[in-house]
Amino acid sequence: MKRAFSSEFDFISTLKKKIWSNKDKNLIAGIGDDCAVLDFGSAEYLLVTTDTFNEEIHFKQRYLSPYEAGFKAMSGAMSDIAAMGGVCRYALVSLSVPLKLLNGFLVDFYRGMQGPLKKTGALLIGGDTTRSKQYFSASITILGLTQKRRIVLRSGAQPGDKVFLTGLTGYSHAGLLLLKKGTPFQGSGLKRALKKHKSPEFRHDMVKKILQMDPTAMIDISDGLSSELNHLAHSSQVSIIIDYTALDHDPVLRKIAQALHVPVLTLIMNSGEEYELLFTSSKNNEKAGFLEIGATCKGKPGVWIRKDKTLFPVKSGGYDHFAVTGQKT
Amino acid sequence: MKRAFSSEFDFISTLKKKIWSNKDKNLIAGIGDDCAVLDFGSAEYLLVTTDTFNEEIHFKQRYLSPYEAGFKAMSGAMSDIAAMGGVCRYALVSLSVPLKLLNGFLVDFYRGMQGPLKKTGALLIGGDTTRSKQYFSASITILGLTQKRRIVLRSGAQPGDKVFLTGLTGYSHAGLLLLKKGTPFQGSGLKRALKKHKSPEFRHDMVKKILQMDPTAMIDISDGLSSELNHLAHSSQVSIIIDYTALDHDPVLRKIAQALHVPVLTLIMNSGEEYELLFTSSKNNEKAGFLEIGATCKGKPGVWIRKDKTLFPVKSGGYDHFAVTGQKT
Repeated sequence: MKRAFSSEFDFISTLKKKIWSNKDKNLIAGIGDDCAVLDFGSAEYLLVTTDTFNEEIHFKQRYLSPYEAGFKAMSGAMSDIAAMGGVCRYALVSLSVPLKLLNGFLVDFYRGMQGPLKKTGALLIGGDTTRSKQYFSASITILGLTQKRRIVLRSGAQPGDKVFLTGLTGYSHAGLLLLKKGTPFQGSGLKRALKKHKSPEFRHDMVKKILQMDPTAMIDISDGLSSELNHLAHSSQVSIIIDYTALDHDPVLRKIAQALHVPVLTLIMNSGEEYELLFTSSKNNEKAGFLEIGATCKGKPGVWIRKDKTLFPVKSGGYDHFAVTGQKT
Repeated sequence: MKRAFSSEFDFISTLKKKIWSNKDKNLIAGIGDDCAVLDFGSAEYLLVTTDTFNEEIHFKQRYLSPYEAGFKAMSGAMSDIAAMGGVCRYALVSLSVPLKLLNGFLVDFYRGMQGPLKKTGALLIGGDTTRSKQYFSASITILGLTQKRRIVLRSGAQPGDKVFLTGLTGYSHAGLLLLKKGTPFQGSGLKRALKKHKSPEFRHDMVKKILQMDPTAMIDISDGLSSELNHLAHSSQVSIIIDYTALDHDPVLRKIAQALHVPVLTLIMNSGEEYELLFTSSKNNEKAGFLEIGATCKGKPGVWIRKDKTLFPVKSGGYDHFAVTGQKT
């Protein structure tokens, strides 16, 4: 099939060039970062992001309860605010609902969304509820605030920075595969993988600690670590070198990968909807407890992984909405 | 079918009571008006609204080109900002796209959205592009600004105000019916009806003139005049008396209604997606050119129409997304 754009990333790049132009006095950053950043003259920047969560693409009813779907949709939207060092304040929720889901599903989906709302103290202040022909869809807009000097873009990484993760990735996709394959693995880590897939927390609780490390760039893991590393490398125009042993260190995840017949590095690199935060900083980790996974250096923008003293290139292997072979759920 | 909520309106009322509480120092108005209104300490209020536009519910590809669909989706979202006396500034667009529409459709849809964007000078600053299983869906968030003393809520109408429309309603639904029935009517007004249905302008060009009349309450006609009149009456706790002759005065619309075998008042009262503005004011119309259709008075909140000295109650008869018999397109 001939397609105008080879990937979501291409499509957004084209849009950015064609339609969007940053000539606005209030607009600090727009398309291409986790959130749009606006300055209305107060002490803080306003962050705005919007995220869509579609039945059969982002979730299937046979794997997620309505409550879990609502929880996950809201976490995913809010994670973009955390990824810029912000605090979530308001949510607007647009739901497209087939008539058959109007009864219990909708109420439980709202209950699920309340989880992340309550945790952050953010308020639901508006939205739109419309009918859809066949499948459920939620589009969530989040408004957040961040102190101006604290804003963290994707583009600020400097050569020589260290690369950190708030937690090891891989469990979310492992959870999905376990559900798909009828949970062939019953050992330790099963619960964690299922929870991570069904109702992932986003890392707003880590933002304060991250800001203390003066992060130079940040992004959240929504499409997959390999994709987000590449976004960060290209936005910041740096090379990123990842240390294999810093990623493949979890015997539990290794066992799950083995049971699923999937290379553990594939899980770690390409698992989406993790909502861990990936950031760069010149500071040391010390007792902060972040996972140090590599470093940035001068050179061609891109990502490499070092294993046994050899560098292998890391391409974006996470979820791409427009890759015909891409499968999310 | 047992349903938890009897209508969209019920559902939103329930939500409002259950989840939303206006205890936030920055939040001036939330769920229940056209936009959420936020005060971040600058000279203007920030208005935020989100609107969803679904294939097969809000539009069918056989009636609307991708360009027209994009134009209409953006107009509808922006209209909510105009309805509060605001100016549109930024748009975030979330699209759910089935693979088969990825090629030309998406590009033309974006071109269509640019129409209202260019007219208002608003900028596209973000969004999300994801795959959908079967049908296209667009969720558009608009951020606008309004001077604080100029904000117009739904709830401010006072007994004794006059009720105005920026233009006669009815043509949008007439246009849809003409398309559905293979345009059985070829006379004057056909072009206007088709244009009003396919690529309606929203009334941002009228906002300045309306503000000069010190409007007490305002709402845009998205679901239908009868529904919006009822919303305004209930929000402002007034009775609204509409003058039949002020509505049924257009011989062209009458002829179209006749050709369609639909009572002309049904077209006028229940046609949705008109994006005309309905407002109340104590001032006189004078040369402003608005359509004066009635007045408010003390009494039970609700709407009545006066015809031949008799009052008939006007119930919400516009589009309700959750009325099982409701058909939008």
